[in-house]
Amino acid sequence: MNWGQLATDRLSGIAKCSVDTVGVTRFPFTPQHAAALDVIRSWMSQAGLQMHMDAAGTLIGRKQGPEGAPTFLIGSHQDSVRNGGRYDGIMGVVIGCLALEKLAADGVELPFSVEILAFADEEGVRFPTALMGPRALAGTFDPNVLAMTDSDGVSLRDALAGFGGEPDRITSLARDPARTLGYLEVHIEQGPVLEAQDTALGLVTGICGIERNTVTFTGDTGHAGTVPMDRRRDALVAASDFISTIHDAAKKVADLRATIGALSLHPNVVNAIPRAVELTLEIRALNDTVRHDFARFARSVGADISDSRHVGFTLERTYEQPAVPCSGDLIDALSVATEAICPTAPRLPSGATHDASAMADLCPISMLFVRCKDGVSHKPEEFATSDDMGVAIQSVAAFLRALEV
Amino acid sequence: MNWGQLATDRLSGIAKCSVDTVGVTRFPFTPQHAAALDVIRSWMSQAGLQMHMDAAGTLIGRKQGPEGAPTFLIGSHQDSVRNGGRYDGIMGVVIGCLALEKLAADGVELPFSVEILAFADEEGVRFPTALMGPRALAGTFDPNVLAMTDSDGVSLRDALAGFGGEPDRITSLARDPARTLGYLEVHIEQGPVLEAQDTALGLVTGICGIERNTVTFTGDTGHAGTVPMDRRRDALVAASDFISTIHDAAKKVADLRATIGALSLHPNVVNAIPRAVELTLEIRALNDTVRHDFARFARSVGADISDSRHVGFTLERTYEQPAVPCSGDLIDALSVATEAICPTAPRLPSGATHDASAMADLCPISMLFVRCKDGVSHKPEEFATSDDMGVAIQSVAAFLRALEV
Repeated sequence: MNWGQLATDRLSGIAKCSVDTVGVTRFPFTPQHAAALDVIRSWMSQAGLQMHMDAAGTLIGRKQGPEGAPTFLIGSHQDSVRNGGRYDGIMGVVIGCLALEKLAADGVELPFSVEILAFADEEGVRFPTALMGPRALAGTFDPNVLAMTDSDGVSLRDALAGFGGEPDRITSLARDPARTLGYLEVHIEQGPVLEAQDTALGLVTGICGIERNTVTFTGDTGHAGTVPMDRRRDALVAASDFISTIHDAAKKVADLRATIGALSLHPNVVNAIPRAVELTLEIRALNDTVRHDFARFARSVGADISDSRHVGFTLERTYEQPAVPCSGDLIDALSVATEAICPTAPRLPSGATHDASAMADLCPISMLFVRCKDGVSHKPEEFATSDDMGVAIQSVAAFLRALEV
Repeated sequence: MNWGQLATDRLSGIAKCSVDTVGVTRFPFTPQHAAALDVIRSWMSQAGLQMHMDAAGTLIGRKQGPEGAPTFLIGSHQDSVRNGGRYDGIMGVVIGCLALEKLAADGVELPFSVEILAFADEEGVRFPTALMGPRALAGTFDPNVLAMTDSDGVSLRDALAGFGGEPDRITSLARDPARTLGYLEVHIEQGPVLEAQDTALGLVTGICGIERNTVTFTGDTGHAGTVPMDRRRDALVAASDFISTIHDAAKKVADLRATIGALSLHPNVVNAIPRAVELTLEIRALNDTVRHDFARFARSVGADISDSRHVGFTLERTYEQPAVPCSGDLIDALSVATEAICPTAPRLPSGATHDASAMADLCPISMLFVRCKDGVSHKPEEFATSDDMGVAIQSVAAFLRALEV
């Protein structure tokens, strides 16, 4: 059986569960979501799983193990961004199902139960919240978010109930950590590292913590012709000093990313000296202390520039999400499982957030990255090869076979 | 007579010829323009001038000299920007009239004719053109601009004709250079230099040449979490290197100003690496060679950054206007005239353009800057003191008295 080709075929098929034909647009609790669950049920059925949708809209396929044995969870999300790709999210469900199908075909009986979880919403595009499915399992779900509405004014509560979910029973979904072996998520890398290293898979060391800061520099505007250079307090020049310095410093810190992604300039006119610049500084790091140290460094850089360029400077943190390390034991087990078929698989952090980050509140987590073309995701051009997905399926199967209760 | 106080009173009075009461809004060939000309006629009348409006809408007040003597011109514009100040432009007309009134009061007869010119349009706010009045006198007027329209679809031709101008006779207004002694324009500085040097007046050495360039840096976008720092081609970082370098280099060049005033960023999202930056680079210098050398330097800086940051770079000149030097003889004469009353008056370039730049095609030009508060212009807060304007009036009178035919 060419498992990788089967994965490609299944992803092509389920890509049709989309609002339009430019890439994939599949939001939670929509007709496209319902159609996708029918397709996923057919995959789960072929893997011999028992299926049900839980109160939070997560489709669960369960392979029952020996009486009283704990459960290992494999999950990912079924939804996409608007005009996203065929792989992000749903590939993890496909590979989980095919790994169990392969084990069954190989006649393997595992000493524990396994569940495949197809979460409803990770992207957070329709509602201003996400990760309801994994949070419900981890017992961290906040029922207040049920009141949030989409752009049509439909509440999450009504959307979920209309889809067959049970909003008032979500908090009862919390699993017993003692009965949960761990969690594995297979996802495209969404970055260029594996492609650059010419390797199919990567072993994820953890999900980076994220903070976002709003930074301002404020000087004086003035006529670009009449104010001599030595009398200027140009906010854009100060911001430029900051941007270059932050970028070059971030290069020297392992497993850290610092990005000034958005910037607005006032008055933003060809013949006026810039009075004020507001920019965003996003910092991601696998180690929260490293991230906090870098944010402190950024603040001191801004203060120095404020002195040297005679401009005002502020830096305010607007958002923070701590880092979530993957389980060392599970990473080691994945490393052993990939050793024969993908010996070059490197360990690398995940700069993006995943369902796994919420599952970490329940049990040890792990993630396997699959190489994607040009590091592109969230676009119709998103692509992973059948061969690489085949390697992932074999690795997950080997990982499960080797896992001890 | 307190000439400076009289100037302030007149500027307060004519400020009422405005569309609204927030500062001054007076566009050419409007009822506000007509009302302003009535006020200016009263000033010209008090100075004993003969008045007429020429075909281009310039109100001219003439003090006839001896038969056959040449003419010295003193001019400025009557119009304002939207919600501009009381001084920009019109102050030059007030001070010209009062200088002649003072000479008459002192019983001085000049050995040449003098004309005060109140040009219709220097700001270029209503129509996408300006300087019709001085260009007509210099013989450089292009009749094609008469077809240009304002935001209501009214052509310049129709607006001028409706105001009593004669569009088809504009080209006949060209003066004889041999019969024109020179041109003087008194204007607020619109910059901070005189205030910083604690002096009322400045002797303008010339009007800076201007060029505008569009600069682009193009790299790759990508997820702010998944692309490691050493694999990025961040267009904003490259642009930042450029902005800081250009600013610091411009500081070291005398009589040069370089401004990055406008910048746009794509995709301009908090969690995406900037793919492309487009920015404006405006360079002004009193010496065109200095300006061209700096533009070449900017191109080489961009090329170096393109190499070091691995991004694309383009620099394209979109506009150019050569520098216009003031007459050395007239500057010297102004220096002598201000020696007794304002001995600290420095020589400085004009970074902004003025009617004088067009008059330079007809005759030797000169400009006198008057200190303005905080360097502010084009705003309701624009301000010059009665004392400083009084010093300017006395200086212009002394200048005219000393001028030889």
